[in-house]
Amino acid sequence: MREPVELAKSYRLLNHGPTVLVSSAHAGQRNVMAAAWSMPVDFDPPKVAVVIDRNTATRALVEGSGSFALNVPTRALAAATLAVGGISARELPAGRDKFDTFGLTTFAASRIDAPLLDGCAAWLECRVLGEPRIQQQYDLFIGEVVAAWADPRLFADGHWRDDPAGAEDRTLHYIAGGRFFSTGEPFDATATPARTI
Amino acid sequence: MREPVELAKSYRLLNHGPTVLVSSAHAGQRNVMAAAWSMPVDFDPPKVAVVIDRNTATRALVEGSGSFALNVPTRALAAATLAVGGISARELPAGRDKFDTFGLTTFAASRIDAPLLDGCAAWLECRVLGEPRIQQQYDLFIGEVVAAWADPRLFADGHWRDDPAGAEDRTLHYIAGGRFFSTGEPFDATATPARTI
Repeated sequence: MREPVELAKSYRLLNHGPTVLVSSAHAGQRNVMAAAWSMPVDFDPPKVAVVIDRNTATRALVEGSGSFALNVPTRALAAATLAVGGISARELPAGRDKFDTFGLTTFAASRIDAPLLDGCAAWLECRVLGEPRIQQQYDLFIGEVVAAWADPRLFADGHWRDDPAGAEDRTLHYIAGGRFFSTGEPFDATATPARTI
Repeated sequence: MREPVELAKSYRLLNHGPTVLVSSAHAGQRNVMAAAWSMPVDFDPPKVAVVIDRNTATRALVEGSGSFALNVPTRALAAATLAVGGISARELPAGRDKFDTFGLTTFAASRIDAPLLDGCAAWLECRVLGEPRIQQQYDLFIGEVVAAWADPRLFADGHWRDDPAGAEDRTLHYIAGGRFFSTGEPFDATATPARTI
């Protein structure tokens, strides 16, 4: 289930720092990898940054196509997130990719070639803003978000819902060694009053 | 309470995507601001990326000193995080800074001039790796982590502890409009087995 997210609000899909799945496609190949290292970098037009290591198969697809998608998985996809993060597409038998290997189904993006993963909480379609120096030096890619989607049961009217159906609907925050934090409870903070000494 | 964190493990202080407080000092001035947009970008030597808007007072201190600290606040500091994120140092009366205005106490960093905030879960001392183009174009700063610290009740032996004393000890993930998620429960995922069709 998915509905479009207003681009100016799309930073909120990543603002809380979830682990994402980077999907990509180019020249008849498609791939998906896990990335704990992504973040928004601008509101409007919305931009994101993500680290895509030079040794990944994803890297060539992103550089070849000039685009990628950030898929925001929920706990229901934690095992799949760990699986696609733990193997390179290059290790798979010829003719196989991570989607069929791990039973992941997809749907078409609206503005880019990368497939979007079914069952995620949200999706950001991104076009690479070429910055050769930082791509080379830090494996760091900047993307402009050109379309965004969310499961309206989890994110609606520009806000994460307080009441996702269950623990399996929480987003993920990777720790290390196959371990994640779930996104926890939302709460309103009241700013500390300034002292008037 | 704080103990040093091995540099090669310091990425784990940010890996789960917490909101941070950026502290800085230069030429007799000090400041602190909130940043939802930071992430690790390398393991060893550890590097981080953080967005520091050109309109912030922090920006001049970071550019002047060539360093900054990322402080990882807990829920006990949510109100202070919101407060320092909601006002610019330039709006304060002459001679006042955000630390005395909001009653925030600090201790000295080991390798940089920025003050570190008492009561946080972790601290990363960073030296700016100058990248003028992305600083100018995206307000994006890359830093090398030159020292790291954590409260051993919350992070010890290179790992976040499963059993922080209470809800107030959880780290924070900013949503928008004064609202945060707490970091939720940790769990181990088991990678989806590959299909052998």
